[in-house]
Amino acid sequence: MHKKLLIPGPTEVSQEILQEQVRHLIGHRGKAFSDLYRGIKSKLTNFFRLPDEYNPTVTTSSGTLWFDIVGRSIVKENALVCVNGAFSSRFAQTIKNCGKKVDLVEVDWGKAVKTRMIADKLESKKYDTVVMCHNESSTGVRNPIYEIGDFIRREYPKIIFAVDSVSSMAGDKILPAEIGCDVIFASSQKCFALPPGLCISLVSDRAIKRAVCVSNRGSYTDLVKIFEFEKKHQTPFTPNISLMYALDKRMDLLLKETYDQVIGRHIKMAKYTRDWAKKYFELFPEIGFESVTLTCIKNTRKKNIDELIAKLAKKGFLISNGYGKLKEKTFRIGHMGEWSINEIKKVLAIIDDIWELEK
Amino acid sequence: MHKKLLIPGPTEVSQEILQEQVRHLIGHRGKAFSDLYRGIKSKLTNFFRLPDEYNPTVTTSSGTLWFDIVGRSIVKENALVCVNGAFSSRFAQTIKNCGKKVDLVEVDWGKAVKTRMIADKLESKKYDTVVMCHNESSTGVRNPIYEIGDFIRREYPKIIFAVDSVSSMAGDKILPAEIGCDVIFASSQKCFALPPGLCISLVSDRAIKRAVCVSNRGSYTDLVKIFEFEKKHQTPFTPNISLMYALDKRMDLLLKETYDQVIGRHIKMAKYTRDWAKKYFELFPEIGFESVTLTCIKNTRKKNIDELIAKLAKKGFLISNGYGKLKEKTFRIGHMGEWSINEIKKVLAIIDDIWELEK
Repeated sequence: MHKKLLIPGPTEVSQEILQEQVRHLIGHRGKAFSDLYRGIKSKLTNFFRLPDEYNPTVTTSSGTLWFDIVGRSIVKENALVCVNGAFSSRFAQTIKNCGKKVDLVEVDWGKAVKTRMIADKLESKKYDTVVMCHNESSTGVRNPIYEIGDFIRREYPKIIFAVDSVSSMAGDKILPAEIGCDVIFASSQKCFALPPGLCISLVSDRAIKRAVCVSNRGSYTDLVKIFEFEKKHQTPFTPNISLMYALDKRMDLLLKETYDQVIGRHIKMAKYTRDWAKKYFELFPEIGFESVTLTCIKNTRKKNIDELIAKLAKKGFLISNGYGKLKEKTFRIGHMGEWSINEIKKVLAIIDDIWELEK
Repeated sequence: MHKKLLIPGPTEVSQEILQEQVRHLIGHRGKAFSDLYRGIKSKLTNFFRLPDEYNPTVTTSSGTLWFDIVGRSIVKENALVCVNGAFSSRFAQTIKNCGKKVDLVEVDWGKAVKTRMIADKLESKKYDTVVMCHNESSTGVRNPIYEIGDFIRREYPKIIFAVDSVSSMAGDKILPAEIGCDVIFASSQKCFALPPGLCISLVSDRAIKRAVCVSNRGSYTDLVKIFEFEKKHQTPFTPNISLMYALDKRMDLLLKETYDQVIGRHIKMAKYTRDWAKKYFELFPEIGFESVTLTCIKNTRKKNIDELIAKLAKKGFLISNGYGKLKEKTFRIGHMGEWSINEIKKVLAIIDDIWELEK
């Protein structure tokens, strides 16, 4: 039985998009591919309102590849990494595992990283890169990247600011030029509502210039090589052409819906889910820092979450238990990609029924 | 107009396989995915006759990621890399770009690397890893990996032997236990006749043990992490689930055809193409070292290759010009994946017509 995905990725993908993958393949060094890829990049540029100094690119990988790309091609010596959940922790560990020095701004899971925490660290030591995760899908916390980006740009113009937006780009408001970030990336299977297998990244000229000065970048993790091939509207290594077709179609649909409507729809779904959660439970994230693309709910009623997931699965929907140490203590509902407010209402009503919450 | 691909990858993919990608997505941390992935690995184990000490794995990437994995997770200090074409050259450069020391066994494009060349080098200096490309798709040369593997296993049992089989696995005979290699990998868009986006790798226990001792492996290039997750029949990072469906189907079809028939079919296609080439032109590779999956032909008649490609495209088929510096001096016909001898005959007959070779 098909279970519709409300987990924090992969999210549900429509038949219309899946069908794009059935198109015949083309050579990745020919004009047809370059035309396709140039079109995708032009649509990404329009949608994310990229000025000239920002460059879109697409890699055949999960989002995690970009942890390595930041570690291998961006961090010169010292990175300051903000950690408030499992994915930002993995980001920090990856950069360490690339042989670079890492200091942390670490806050409890459920809390957001604040500008003044970063300011304190940057005052005490020289860093070449600041790294953070915008939307921690392990905790449902959304960090204030606009305020942080503005601060870094103003006070430390030489620092490269790299942001994991894996589960928020194309759902939450992500406009790199307004954030002031240099590298920001997202996986195809989250708000883009595509199958997994691609990572969409928006990269500043400053970041590419930085990469030129970093040694031992490898090949698959070499940002410089990626942008050498971008000039020809190609990728350095054979890309997933089937998913490129699907991404092209997705960008058409997103542009048709318009940026503001897409973000507005996600905000509406988040607000409804949060109101529902607050009525019966509590929100896990710190107030004012809740994700727009998934809601992480504190299991204050000590309900059996695994049992709920099983019962809901029989009704055709899949949600997530808490991540790692938060299992059974929290549960997570993803509302990203193609979902609409009416569908979210329907799913929450089924949970009401299963748990008899209205009584 | 649909042009059927006889380039050295991506190769033509049937509708039956493309349609597999339309199936609904599933969570990559749930039982359904583990069942799917365990099944794929079991089929790979059967098809490639893997004994217990060999482990299959699938990454969401192009084949090049494994150049980086070898560079980051396998080479400790000194690698000996055999170079006889563009892809083996990239492999060597990648390992250098991972900050490891590289010496080359370099022969002219079109020539094969011989066991005694490697023996000479290994005698003169200590290396922890020997690296080579089995099937150089830039030149159509096939290196004698069985003989080389046998030599290394016998004389240098501590050396890890890593082989790029990107364009030969599942087309040419690749049985890791017989070769005696430790890491061997292939891209999905070559002989597996899938869309690009996955890399299939067969890895020995010895290689995983080696990786444990190598520092700064990163995340996406960390062989140890990959095999930690293999125990749960999962991948460390969200995999391309749509392509996993397609790979599962492909393995069913390959097992049904049987290993010997698959390899036999490729040998037949290669032989026919070579005989055709020798009748009108010359083969580019050294005699006795011709690839089974693609034929690289010396343009002894000084024909206009770009013009042929354009005319053939109008008939619905795409072949390749020479690679890089071999453009117009050679041309390449891929005969890998789902192609049959009758189709190859048909395409060569069309070339006969276009160039009026029979006259």
